[in-house]
Amino acid sequence: MARTLKIAAAQMGPVHLTSKRPETLSRMITLLQSASSLGAQLVLFPETAFTTFFPRHLIASQEQLDTYFEHNDNLPCAPNTKPLFDEAKKLGIDISVGFAERAEDGKGYNTSVYFSARKGEVIAKYRKVHLPGTKEPFENPDAVNQLEKRYFEPGNLGFKAFRTPDLVEGVAKKGAGEGEAAPGKGDPVMGMMICNDRRWVEGWRIYGMQGVEVVLCGYNTAGFAPDLWGTRKVMTPEEAEKDAVFHHKLVMQGNSYMNSCFSVSAAKAGLEDGKYDLIGGSCITSPEGHVLAEAKGKGDEIVFAEVDLEDCRQGKEKTFDFDRHRRIDQYGPITEQTGVVEPELLG
Amino acid sequence: MARTLKIAAAQMGPVHLTSKRPETLSRMITLLQSASSLGAQLVLFPETAFTTFFPRHLIASQEQLDTYFEHNDNLPCAPNTKPLFDEAKKLGIDISVGFAERAEDGKGYNTSVYFSARKGEVIAKYRKVHLPGTKEPFENPDAVNQLEKRYFEPGNLGFKAFRTPDLVEGVAKKGAGEGEAAPGKGDPVMGMMICNDRRWVEGWRIYGMQGVEVVLCGYNTAGFAPDLWGTRKVMTPEEAEKDAVFHHKLVMQGNSYMNSCFSVSAAKAGLEDGKYDLIGGSCITSPEGHVLAEAKGKGDEIVFAEVDLEDCRQGKEKTFDFDRHRRIDQYGPITEQTGVVEPELLG
Repeated sequence: MARTLKIAAAQMGPVHLTSKRPETLSRMITLLQSASSLGAQLVLFPETAFTTFFPRHLIASQEQLDTYFEHNDNLPCAPNTKPLFDEAKKLGIDISVGFAERAEDGKGYNTSVYFSARKGEVIAKYRKVHLPGTKEPFENPDAVNQLEKRYFEPGNLGFKAFRTPDLVEGVAKKGAGEGEAAPGKGDPVMGMMICNDRRWVEGWRIYGMQGVEVVLCGYNTAGFAPDLWGTRKVMTPEEAEKDAVFHHKLVMQGNSYMNSCFSVSAAKAGLEDGKYDLIGGSCITSPEGHVLAEAKGKGDEIVFAEVDLEDCRQGKEKTFDFDRHRRIDQYGPITEQTGVVEPELLG
Repeated sequence: MARTLKIAAAQMGPVHLTSKRPETLSRMITLLQSASSLGAQLVLFPETAFTTFFPRHLIASQEQLDTYFEHNDNLPCAPNTKPLFDEAKKLGIDISVGFAERAEDGKGYNTSVYFSARKGEVIAKYRKVHLPGTKEPFENPDAVNQLEKRYFEPGNLGFKAFRTPDLVEGVAKKGAGEGEAAPGKGDPVMGMMICNDRRWVEGWRIYGMQGVEVVLCGYNTAGFAPDLWGTRKVMTPEEAEKDAVFHHKLVMQGNSYMNSCFSVSAAKAGLEDGKYDLIGGSCITSPEGHVLAEAKGKGDEIVFAEVDLEDCRQGKEKTFDFDRHRRIDQYGPITEQTGVVEPELLG
């Protein structure tokens, strides 16, 4: 029996430092309504969707910094975010959206939540594990900073997959009588990751080991930034952006294939503040690693596909049957060591 | 300073059940000479290069089975293999080549070795960790068996990277005086994997964590086989082969990028015994995930590229600086659990 799901990525064009929160929110609601008109059941929004990508700026004022964060994780009640969740509930569409989270202990996290329209509540939360960039700003004033390590703590919630209720037909529910199908079996298995996480095989694999069927990944990815690392490849801005899009799609396609799952990725794209270039390339990929749909431009745009979650089975039961083929006795270094060790010197 | 290396994949066309070992060996030597004429310093041959891909056959006779194995791992001395190593030494070309290994305790392994021409000896050995297929043959007589799990034990040597001596210029050697550069630093860091291993991120990552610069992977990959798994995708043989080549290149490109290394892959390709189709697609990929060179056909063919190992630095020092970005505290399940666990049921 087919287990179809209509999914969408809500790519957003630039959100500037000067953009008003209500304007941005209004764009997001318009995107949600567009997705609804296509029949979408689930819409993914980008990383830090409600604001500009502020980690590129060194922000000295705590007051200013606070304006980019939500001070609790109860987004559906906060004034700057509530209308989006209200609209999702009204339209009956699940959403996943990224935001900067200020935890109760004052720590910051780069977070995304999954909101179930039928439940009317956030049912899952993920905090970005792989924070790129640096803690301290670059000395070179021409550099574009990437201060995620300054403003955020690495995510501490792991990579927890979850089944989303009420999205596909014919699934037995909790409280089903004895002898009936196990409750929830058949509900889609989802996992969230954020931006740079998609380049790290470890998160994908841990989701794969929970049978993930759809990985959701919002992102803000620079198309071009001056090279301050002394590395040797020099590219034009156009070449650099093309390569960044290539790398984005390569990791979405490759990791979807190697974990037999669909993926949805949603960019914040275009020139923020008229000069900070972010790539587009929002796309939906299949468990066989193919791109099923992708953004045409770098503005606000819905990328949509209807998929059959049963397409994950071929990979999960054959080439990537982890139970039969993984060899954890040979994998020790992956969790025992963080960085690079010198290989044996032969000869 | 550039650290250039001229590398080649020696793709081989089909080797049949009826092919005579000296004929196959002669083809390999011809390929080596072709690579030499291009200036290659290192040539990779396929998995089980000296024989047909025998695990597709159920072989009841131990005597017949033994003809596909080498009874020790001292290939450079065995009569059916020695001439290849002699030629490599004579031409001054390092080679890596796959073969079926019969260990001293009688166990079988799907193995590859790295032979240093200057040393005149095998300096590294790898045993395939991710054996695909089944232990028992399929009941359906139309099925193409894949009996690697029957004939081989999973590799037990881990993923050990190694530096190869004498391949690049200007590297200090063992015994260098005090104050000189550390011996071996600057020698290329190599890692071997075999066929199906390339689809598994764990091996790549462990090599990456040793600073690998070139991953070598020989393979025999079916282009089309009847689907006996009851999974739902039905393809024509042409579509299936196209998809198999796509998956091959996707994992070579994606994993090269995510571990900032070059890769070289060498197929045994074409129709073995006139009916078992193997894909081509032998290629060399860059640390940025691009294909630098690839096979044009499915016969005996050299794929060649001159690369600069310094191109690995950009990835290793920036996006994929493992020391700064990996978060092993969040990776536990990768080594704690083999298969798939049920995710939390929400709602």
